[in-house]
Amino acid sequence: MISFDIIREAHDRIRPFIHHTPVLTNQTINDLVGAELFFKCENFQKIGAFKARGGLNAILQVVANQEGNAITTHSSGNHAQAVAFAARQVGIPAYIVMPRTAPKVKKEAVLGYGAEVIECEPTLDAREAGVQEVIERTGAVLVHPFDDDRVIAGQATATKELIEDANREKPFDIIMSPVGGGGLLSGTALTTHYLSPTTRVIAGEPEGAADAVLSFRSGQVEKAPYIKTIADGLMTTLSERTLAIIRSHVSDILTVSDDEIIAAMRLVWERMKIIIEPSSAVPLAAVLKHKDQFAGQKIGIIVTGGNVDLGKLPF
Amino acid sequence: MISFDIIREAHDRIRPFIHHTPVLTNQTINDLVGAELFFKCENFQKIGAFKARGGLNAILQVVANQEGNAITTHSSGNHAQAVAFAARQVGIPAYIVMPRTAPKVKKEAVLGYGAEVIECEPTLDAREAGVQEVIERTGAVLVHPFDDDRVIAGQATATKELIEDANREKPFDIIMSPVGGGGLLSGTALTTHYLSPTTRVIAGEPEGAADAVLSFRSGQVEKAPYIKTIADGLMTTLSERTLAIIRSHVSDILTVSDDEIIAAMRLVWERMKIIIEPSSAVPLAAVLKHKDQFAGQKIGIIVTGGNVDLGKLPF
Repeated sequence: MISFDIIREAHDRIRPFIHHTPVLTNQTINDLVGAELFFKCENFQKIGAFKARGGLNAILQVVANQEGNAITTHSSGNHAQAVAFAARQVGIPAYIVMPRTAPKVKKEAVLGYGAEVIECEPTLDAREAGVQEVIERTGAVLVHPFDDDRVIAGQATATKELIEDANREKPFDIIMSPVGGGGLLSGTALTTHYLSPTTRVIAGEPEGAADAVLSFRSGQVEKAPYIKTIADGLMTTLSERTLAIIRSHVSDILTVSDDEIIAAMRLVWERMKIIIEPSSAVPLAAVLKHKDQFAGQKIGIIVTGGNVDLGKLPF
Repeated sequence: MISFDIIREAHDRIRPFIHHTPVLTNQTINDLVGAELFFKCENFQKIGAFKARGGLNAILQVVANQEGNAITTHSSGNHAQAVAFAARQVGIPAYIVMPRTAPKVKKEAVLGYGAEVIECEPTLDAREAGVQEVIERTGAVLVHPFDDDRVIAGQATATKELIEDANREKPFDIIMSPVGGGGLLSGTALTTHYLSPTTRVIAGEPEGAADAVLSFRSGQVEKAPYIKTIADGLMTTLSERTLAIIRSHVSDILTVSDDEIIAAMRLVWERMKIIIEPSSAVPLAAVLKHKDQFAGQKIGIIVTGGNVDLGKLPF
């Protein structure tokens, strides 16, 4: 059970290493939606994504508790960078198993943080086998991208900052995040539950990776009917751990198409002049799709990251 | 003569209508350059560019002094939006003469601010004839994009904010802006002269619109040898007015190629996660090209705008 004390301790632990990211608003988008939106800009976070928070919170504890002298994980994206970055901060080696299909810009970023990249086939089996091999070879400790209380508590600190910065005069009606494996959504829901209990938490999920909405309804960890989405950070499936938290503290999960994601992403780029990755645009896409449901509300949105391959843009 | 009082009055006049934009820094870019860079982010300004400042300062005075009941200008870009936006703020009509080749996104933005767009051939003669026709038809007052003390005083307020926000503990060694017609550079140089006289002002100019560097050296208004650059905001030529200010208060003008501009723009997009237009990347391109000259310095850079056509990116 992740208490608020655990989230506060996580925040104190990682604070020296992360940015307190800004909360931005945009009049044009507010007018378009008919609501009041507050964007928590984790695209400006270290490594360009909120995942720096969870990675740091886990690895700082691995080192403090002398659990190991190296870190490993498998990830195609931002968690890979987060672990590489966090390991460098604390001065231990990181071994990152990445599918050979991962974007070049993300592999280069991992290498830039001084980690070793081990390429594998783009299947979950190959990724897990790669990690197992690293563990046997190096004794590294696995930091899972979301199925880990320490990672969830780290991700929860983004919403802590959002609420502390922008909830004072009037509480949020709704706080939103995207959902992939559910680490961020779990952290978002827990922090909101503790700090702003009248606020509802709603997630956005791509239609092309729609496992969480099924699991949320059935109460079982379900697989997505198919996996095909531009939101490459959201292709993973919930775990029992994240599903339990989400079932307890999330009000709804709304799905959106890739076209809706791209339109929302483009709107943010054009109007806010900030670079957000497709996964980050999923909650706004859900708001734009269901304007009636959101009209007149005060809505916080976790903008999860800004790591895009500029050579492969969808517009 | 634009005194500091005139610049301060301009700031007080336009303050209710503009954003006080943030000053951002980026560790990766600092490490790459070997200097300390402070980016004054006018890409987050109203209309997505600093030109909102000059347009407002001029039009608010046109109305206050009862010089006319409508505004006109010719512009292919951000000045068009600035005039349309400012006219709407004060509630008078704006007639904007735009070359038919101007980016669609910019025409749409002007229309979005409620202005009338008059299309013309993409030549200076056609643009000036278009404005003359508007003046005869409507009695509108012309607000020139840069050859106007009120516009220059408005643009000068960006550097006023930069210096007031980031100059306290240690003065800037250098403040940089791009140069097109010289309105922004004149304002930048004047404010720096008044508020931080030990700071040098250096401009960046595209090789493919290199009139200012020639004029700066000869003391005469010169034409560019050729006009071909991605920095579409910088294709205009200095006026006698801007040249005189620049010759008095600017230390140097450095030219950069389009490839250098695109590389600097991409660096900012990838690392800072903010959208800047090509013209905005020109000073950083000059810093990257002449690292030795800038090493160890504290440098302020006016990021002029973020209005790009996402359908026509150079990467």
